[in-house]
Amino acid sequence: MLRIKIINGPNLNLLGVREPHIYGTTTLAEIQRSCENTARELKARLTFLQSNHEGQIVDWIQAARDDADAVILNPAGYSFYSVAIFDALKAFEGPIVELHLSNIHARDELHRHSIMSRAATAVICGLGPAGYLIAMQAAAQLVEKKAKAGATHAA
Amino acid sequence: MLRIKIINGPNLNLLGVREPHIYGTTTLAEIQRSCENTARELKARLTFLQSNHEGQIVDWIQAARDDADAVILNPAGYSFYSVAIFDALKAFEGPIVELHLSNIHARDELHRHSIMSRAATAVICGLGPAGYLIAMQAAAQLVEKKAKAGATHAA
Amino acid sequence: MLRIKIINGPNLNLLGVREPHIYGTTTLAEIQRSCENTARELKARLTFLQSNHEGQIVDWIQAARDDADAVILNPAGYSFYSVAIFDALKAFEGPIVELHLSNIHARDELHRHSIMSRAATAVICGLGPAGYLIAMQAAAQLVEKKAKAGATHAA
Amino acid sequence: MLRIKIINGPNLNLLGVREPHIYGTTTLAEIQRSCENTARELKARLTFLQSNHEGQIVDWIQAARDDADAVILNPAGYSFYSVAIFDALKAFEGPIVELHLSNIHARDELHRHSIMSRAATAVICGLGPAGYLIAMQAAAQLVEKKAKAGATHAA
Amino acid sequence: MLRIKIINGPNLNLLGVREPHIYGTTTLAEIQRSCENTARELKARLTFLQSNHEGQIVDWIQAARDDADAVILNPAGYSFYSVAIFDALKAFEGPIVELHLSNIHARDELHRHSIMSRAATAVICGLGPAGYLIAMQAAAQLVEKKAKAGATHAA
Amino acid sequence: MLRIKIINGPNLNLLGVREPHIYGTTTLAEIQRSCENTARELKARLTFLQSNHEGQIVDWIQAARDDADAVILNPAGYSFYSVAIFDALKAFEGPIVELHLSNIHARDELHRHSIMSRAATAVICGLGPAGYLIAMQAAAQLVEKKAKAGATHAA
Amino acid sequence: MLRIKIINGPNLNLLGVREPHIYGTTTLAEIQRSCENTARELKARLTFLQSNHEGQIVDWIQAARDDADAVILNPAGYSFYSVAIFDALKAFEGPIVELHLSNIHARDELHRHSIMSRAATAVICGLGPAGYLIAMQAAAQLVEKKAKAGATHAA
Amino acid sequence: MLRIKIINGPNLNLLGVREPHIYGTTTLAEIQRSCENTARELKARLTFLQSNHEGQIVDWIQAARDDADAVILNPAGYSFYSVAIFDALKAFEGPIVELHLSNIHARDELHRHSIMSRAATAVICGLGPAGYLIAMQAAAQLVEKKAKAGATHAA
Amino acid sequence: MLRIKIINGPNLNLLGVREPHIYGTTTLAEIQRSCENTARELKARLTFLQSNHEGQIVDWIQAARDDADAVILNPAGYSFYSVAIFDALKAFEGPIVELHLSNIHARDELHRHSIMSRAATAVICGLGPAGYLIAMQAAAQLVEKKAKAGATHAA
Amino acid sequence: MLRIKIINGPNLNLLGVREPHIYGTTTLAEIQRSCENTARELKARLTFLQSNHEGQIVDWIQAARDDADAVILNPAGYSFYSVAIFDALKAFEGPIVELHLSNIHARDELHRHSIMSRAATAVICGLGPAGYLIAMQAAAQLVEKKAKAGATHAA
Amino acid sequence: MLRIKIINGPNLNLLGVREPHIYGTTTLAEIQRSCENTARELKARLTFLQSNHEGQIVDWIQAARDDADAVILNPAGYSFYSVAIFDALKAFEGPIVELHLSNIHARDELHRHSIMSRAATAVICGLGPAGYLIAMQAAAQLVEKKAKAGATHAA
Amino acid sequence: MLRIKIINGPNLNLLGVREPHIYGTTTLAEIQRSCENTARELKARLTFLQSNHEGQIVDWIQAARDDADAVILNPAGYSFYSVAIFDALKAFEGPIVELHLSNIHARDELHRHSIMSRAATAVICGLGPAGYLIAMQAAAQLVEKKAKAGATHAA
Repeated sequence: MLRIKIINGPNLNLLGVREPHIYGTTTLAEIQRSCENTARELKARLTFLQSNHEGQIVDWIQAARDDADAVILNPAGYSFYSVAIFDALKAFEGPIVELHLSNIHARDELHRHSIMSRAATAVICGLGPAGYLIAMQAAAQLVEKKAKAGATHAA
Repeated sequence: MLRIKIINGPNLNLLGVREPHIYGTTTLAEIQRSCENTARELKARLTFLQSNHEGQIVDWIQAARDDADAVILNPAGYSFYSVAIFDALKAFEGPIVELHLSNIHARDELHRHSIMSRAATAVICGLGPAGYLIAMQAAAQLVEKKAKAGATHAA
Repeated sequence: MLRIKIINGPNLNLLGVREPHIYGTTTLAEIQRSCENTARELKARLTFLQSNHEGQIVDWIQAARDDADAVILNPAGYSFYSVAIFDALKAFEGPIVELHLSNIHARDELHRHSIMSRAATAVICGLGPAGYLIAMQAAAQLVEKKAKAGATHAA
Repeated sequence: MLRIKIINGPNLNLLGVREPHIYGTTTLAEIQRSCENTARELKARLTFLQSNHEGQIVDWIQAARDDADAVILNPAGYSFYSVAIFDALKAFEGPIVELHLSNIHARDELHRHSIMSRAATAVICGLGPAGYLIAMQAAAQLVEKKAKAGATHAA
Repeated sequence: MLRIKIINGPNLNLLGVREPHIYGTTTLAEIQRSCENTARELKARLTFLQSNHEGQIVDWIQAARDDADAVILNPAGYSFYSVAIFDALKAFEGPIVELHLSNIHARDELHRHSIMSRAATAVICGLGPAGYLIAMQAAAQLVEKKAKAGATHAA
Repeated sequence: MLRIKIINGPNLNLLGVREPHIYGTTTLAEIQRSCENTARELKARLTFLQSNHEGQIVDWIQAARDDADAVILNPAGYSFYSVAIFDALKAFEGPIVELHLSNIHARDELHRHSIMSRAATAVICGLGPAGYLIAMQAAAQLVEKKAKAGATHAA
Repeated sequence: MLRIKIINGPNLNLLGVREPHIYGTTTLAEIQRSCENTARELKARLTFLQSNHEGQIVDWIQAARDDADAVILNPAGYSFYSVAIFDALKAFEGPIVELHLSNIHARDELHRHSIMSRAATAVICGLGPAGYLIAMQAAAQLVEKKAKAGATHAA
Repeated sequence: MLRIKIINGPNLNLLGVREPHIYGTTTLAEIQRSCENTARELKARLTFLQSNHEGQIVDWIQAARDDADAVILNPAGYSFYSVAIFDALKAFEGPIVELHLSNIHARDELHRHSIMSRAATAVICGLGPAGYLIAMQAAAQLVEKKAKAGATHAA
Repeated sequence: MLRIKIINGPNLNLLGVREPHIYGTTTLAEIQRSCENTARELKARLTFLQSNHEGQIVDWIQAARDDADAVILNPAGYSFYSVAIFDALKAFEGPIVELHLSNIHARDELHRHSIMSRAATAVICGLGPAGYLIAMQAAAQLVEKKAKAGATHAA
Repeated sequence: MLRIKIINGPNLNLLGVREPHIYGTTTLAEIQRSCENTARELKARLTFLQSNHEGQIVDWIQAARDDADAVILNPAGYSFYSVAIFDALKAFEGPIVELHLSNIHARDELHRHSIMSRAATAVICGLGPAGYLIAMQAAAQLVEKKAKAGATHAA
Repeated sequence: MLRIKIINGPNLNLLGVREPHIYGTTTLAEIQRSCENTARELKARLTFLQSNHEGQIVDWIQAARDDADAVILNPAGYSFYSVAIFDALKAFEGPIVELHLSNIHARDELHRHSIMSRAATAVICGLGPAGYLIAMQAAAQLVEKKAKAGATHAA
Repeated sequence: MLRIKIINGPNLNLLGVREPHIYGTTTLAEIQRSCENTARELKARLTFLQSNHEGQIVDWIQAARDDADAVILNPAGYSFYSVAIFDALKAFEGPIVELHLSNIHARDELHRHSIMSRAATAVICGLGPAGYLIAMQAAAQLVEKKAKAGATHAA
């Protein structure tokens, strides 16, 4: 059974509450429910996490080596400097989809270039909450594609 | 009826032919066929184009003001310097999904930072040919979301 | 009743102990007592916190949305790279006074430019422990000014 | 008879149509008519061109060696990177007036420094459509001044 | 009656005297006379000033708030660093035409990028003494355009 | 008797007049009156000055060696390049409080990094007119602290 | 039979005509004739092309996959920014000789660093028209060397 | 009795497990055992720690002021941005040996320049697990050397 | 009779008074007297000036066109940004000796690179007050050398 | 028998003589004697060299291909620019230990980043003369480890 | 009789020996023999030199003023920083062909931009050992061309 | 007896021979003779040296610790990168006068910023051959001043 782990970085727990005219009124809990629906459709097991703590995020990514086939990471503020998270991603062997609600490339210089992207398999940004569902589909496809490639190699 | 215009930049006509061990064996024609299938599912009208000529791409984006509700652009080599294409995108009022087959952020310095991203609504990269279908779904959702917002405004 | 939350970043717990010939002999506990006196004069409720953990500081700033009218932040080492804390500050709607004991602009290149300042309302540095009391007065004035402006808008 | 060639770069064909609240409601056709009026006043023969294609613009500037005494170039998006157009300008021996509708120096970093300016005789920006007429007067004066200098040299 | 104030920066008092083979033999006094002629044609009142002193130029620009409808500024050497003059320009509400005799963009790195341009309405360079007359026409048009827009707003 | 010298840089004479919706309606004269009240409370002698002229500001800071115990400097536009003022500050031996009405660190790149800060004892910014009174209190405390330290050294 | 394709970039059609005191009086047609002579000596089939259009040059390089064993490219103005041409070069599997008439490394900063060089096999510059003949010899040798290596591999 | 504290940063708990063909098959537990052997030889008391949490590492370094004579720090991912850890190191008065398993100077730009090195006494990198034992010897010598110097000063 | 004009920039009037342990106890008046002695030996007429005002220094350099054969300039703080003074120097046709008391190249980044040097004939720094006398000798030699060269040309 | 070659760069012959309060009183001859003792313990043959000449150092590194199993290089001043030495190191196939007496990363910008480190196997700095002995142990271990790996490959 | 001097820089004496799978098996002695053959064909006198010593290379280039008509320089590692060699090249009046075996523009940042190229007449890189023969032909042509130009001038 | 050592760097042996219209016709031998005359006047013993070899220059500067009271160094091409020479200068305790014939600050970017200047006592440039004599006078004064300061300290 496909195991997807979604990890949300700092301040994403404020979604829907903070400045709703900008970030919309969808809360992280609502996003989680939508993701759970999508997981059922994909027949996948979903783990959905959020933390403001860099070390916690490193721990979760490390654990994904044992408890997930794909990681979807919205690194939020840590995107731009956390080499610790970057190194943890490098040690995960399954597909990694980096996700941002907003189009970070169109933001100010502090928020423009995610160093995580170098360690990710794919990057999706600017699609708002819908991005989570699309990232899950993408992750499922990447896992399947990898499985096929593995089968071919094994043959 | 939803009108989606997919524009492919320089050298993408070589897909599947050039270095298949790297870029895979899927040709642009095959991607086009998959996109046409997806268009049927989305009940959308698809225009699928490719050019090596910067001016041609500007022309097509300008025309999209009249003949498309959403643009999906894989700007390829022009991603990194064509302010002409960037300005054309700025003049398009519907959603724009920027698409790259590979994860450009993990490439060499020449191919790392797309200036197009500042003008795009969303950016998707690293998903290979499957990215086209995901971009179409994303574009459809963005158009629908915009239509709803417009309806609300008008009410 | 005015609620002021003072948050101290990493290594400030060593104040007065570490290199007293440089940082003086005033400890953080003594600063806290002075701040409590000032709070009584200002008829304000004070919360005084310190942590070496970035995530903890993010949590406290987020909580300030509910339990404080103004935040005084001495981000110490995190000043120079923590976009996570920066984003948390951006989500706080009351006045933010950024505080540094030393004049950071006169220090070495690692400690010269605080990225927090872009999210702060005001910045005070170089006044030593006395800066805390001055920051509290400033915070009180900023809250009062904002209340007046709000009253005017509401009128 | 004075021959003036006005060359407009990419996306200028959208003038007056695109975002009229920003760029005004004057179309490029209307600007052309005003220029033709000014040409009659100056007793000059006017060629007025627009293209989205970099190579086409290079061709027209090359041709100006034979069919124009002065070139007025609004390079638009190509201003910022087209060394090909720059080199073509360098090969034109008459006066070159570089023209921008907006004050590009007050724009974002992508649109701030035109490399064309190093090859131009004069640069005019920020005057809107009226800039075209002023550029024509300037061009006429520069040609006249050059003719006088030539006459003196020949004498 | 239209009031135009032309302010000339440092070393422009040497025009026509210093290195005439480069800067030409036209003196600043001669330029002033031409400007006075143009002012008569435009039915405008002209103030024509020159100073080597940065503070003096700031004073004159500040005074323009009361005694001029448009400012034409040739900031000369101050173009490249005087934030004091820049700030004064920002406080002037009428049109500002920045003027340079030579094409500064084609000069050495010390003289290439005027910070004033970000505060100007329009920039004209490379036209020599004739640039003054063209700048006056441009200023007159900008004032007129602004007056019309104001009239429309008031309507 | 404590002698405080407040020096205001270029364009601050326009306070309250220029763009009141941004800078507020408090004039520099009103700030001066508030400062004089504060001076009476602090039993200090106040000198309150403003100039648009860099050299004048250098003169006043030099004179402070004889006629002031502390200097409060709002260098305004000169903050960002005047090494002449910087060097004058370096020659003043009493405390120097650098003051800015707005939070300069949150402004555009031209106005972000004050070189004066390296020569100042303390920096306060973002508190508006109230910053002047807070800076006076800070200056008084710094002078007192220095006097104590001196007394100790002498003992 | 060895097939060599020589592609000339923008403005090279003006050779011999433009500023003969700098670029010499040899025209591109004359260079073509010399190349044809050399081709006969090398028993090679020569294609000799020139275009001002970036897209055209991309098309020709792509076609070289089928109709040439070696490409000699003088990218002229496109040398310095055309990632589109760069990517096309990367897809060509035979030897690529980049050629410049002048020594570009000794020119101004706009014309100093060709990004094409990273995709080329060899680079020759500064030899004037004679460089074409030398590039043809070099290309012939590189093809021969590659053929030998291939033969060895196949053995 | 000599007290050595070895602190390992993020992701080092994966040693020997993650990509053994690159990082070798030695686990952190095995390194710890070797270090304990070396500690016995040096007659030193060893504390051996690992954490993915920046704040935890700051806490441990602060505690070293009371419970260690020397610190050996392998800051891993935090090497490149954690000013918080840097400041904690600055407050430790004994010798600090910075240690990296790989030669970080030969890695990619994200992992090349450790800011910790400015606060360290000595830096050792590129020796793999053996580096730990060498770092312990070095730390022992540095403590001894410092003790001697202290004795001399005290005499 | 040789006419030498020595111009001293901002804060040099504090020489000998300010921080005598650093800058020595020689005052500018004493330097002036030494220079007058040297002038008598050189049979030269000396003008010795100091100002804190940039515009004043520009005025004096301009006047040197009529009243001096050589200029010795110690630009002090203005060395590092005053393009206005730089331009004035460019308009002076006699020799210019730039002088600094300290070795500016060994100072902090604010005081390291004088832009004046590009306009000077010679630069002398690091010799303290004695540098003035050496600069006068150098100026005298440069004037003499130029006179000889002129005589030769005229012959 | 293990052959270790220690090469010392420019000015290291002054050790112990130059500024003993900084660099200590240990001379290079004394270091050499300590190294010879260590060599005996390691049953290694030691070559110990010093030169101020870059070419000589290149020669010695080249020769190490035949006469050494490991190289220990203290490149001193050449660390920061000598690509010639860097290239020579690249051609040596045994382990290379780069050594610096001081912690170069804590020095001024001229002495901070050794380009040699990219070619070294390991880098040790900040341990003073004791660093030589530690480097020898490290070199011995690296040679042994490599021999084992070779034996395994060969098996 | 044409005199050609070929100077090879540091580490080129290792050619053919060092890493033959990368640099090929051709030694410098074999290249020298090929060059001697080519010299005979060109009826030229060849001097073929190699040194690891920068000063030696400067000496040889200086001597070329008397003993060579053209210099072919493969500066190897010195390419990237030796201003001493650069200045020596500037003093040589005949043609200079800079030569590199590999395409340096496609190498790492340390080896990408040769400062020598600004002083060279022509640059050839990426052709391997065959580049030497091609450089000799090019040098011969450049000398001949120069002789013709001289003859014309003399006529 | 005062001992002055003058060291000349690479290519200065070509003075007077190379491009006399630029560098003049004075040879280094003639400069040496003038220096010997000046030495006699100063009652000093002169050593006058030149080398193209960096290591040789390091050796001579090291030797100056024993055989000279002052060093005058014209580092020529080595000025811009030789940290080896810089370090040698740092180890010399007497005065160092850095000398350049031309005004290097007005030259191209390769020759503009001497890193030697940070280690020099004084810098003199732009005075041509006369600079040598002036540097000798300056060196003599610096030695005398230092001797006086030493005498005072000793008293």
